[in-house]
Amino acid sequence: MINQSTLLIKQFVGLIKLGAFPNTLEFVEELGQKVILDLNLTVVNKMSHIFSPAGITMGYILSQSHLIIHTYPENGIIHVDLVMCSDHNETEFKDSLTQALSKYDVHSIEIKSVVP
Amino acid sequence: MINQSTLLIKQFVGLIKLGAFPNTLEFVEELGQKVILDLNLTVVNKMSHIFSPAGITMGYILSQSHLIIHTYPENGIIHVDLVMCSDHNETEFKDSLTQALSKYDVHSIEIKSVVP
Repeated sequence: MINQSTLLIKQFVGLIKLGAFPNTLEFVEELGQKVILDLNLTVVNKMSHIFSPAGITMGYILSQSHLIIHTYPENGIIHVDLVMCSDHNETEFKDSLTQALSKYDVHSIEIKSVVP
Repeated sequence: MINQSTLLIKQFVGLIKLGAFPNTLEFVEELGQKVILDLNLTVVNKMSHIFSPAGITMGYILSQSHLIIHTYPENGIIHVDLVMCSDHNETEFKDSLTQALSKYDVHSIEIKSVVP
């Protein structure tokens, strides 16, 4: 039986403005892994793409939904998209990003919640 | 030089409520391909995962950013997340989903825009 009312999908989008950061897959994977560990998420598949001349996308399918990171080094911007069917809130997501990027010159981290 | 003001990231999230639909990778790939063709997007990498007992996630990295589809057949719900650095609007996205699912018993398609 279909019950459309029982599914809660939460989505948080983080827009991070920062100074120089490495245009490397290692940098993006480290950021992804820190958020995944911190929020206790489970990866079931992943993919990446290195753009030319700059920018990297790293995507994870989670057992809780997905995490996608796009970097725009030439703009000093990182976009992080987290969709979850689990019980985390906006503050936990922001704290996780803040901690993961503590070595870098972060100007701002803006989180948007997509209300279902 | 870093210029954080020149990057426009658009994000649309579609929550589709519908009757029975196939719990197959083919169904999800067909939906993804139709949206990609319709909005003239370019795939650079893709991945998928089949959940047990039901539900499929299909993710595409696009040269314009990403498209991720999650299906929840037991809830009659499809979640479609599109992030783009290109010039489409909410109506084009909704039209594209409506057309791609025209064979199915769609109850509602709700689009949220994530304003940067």
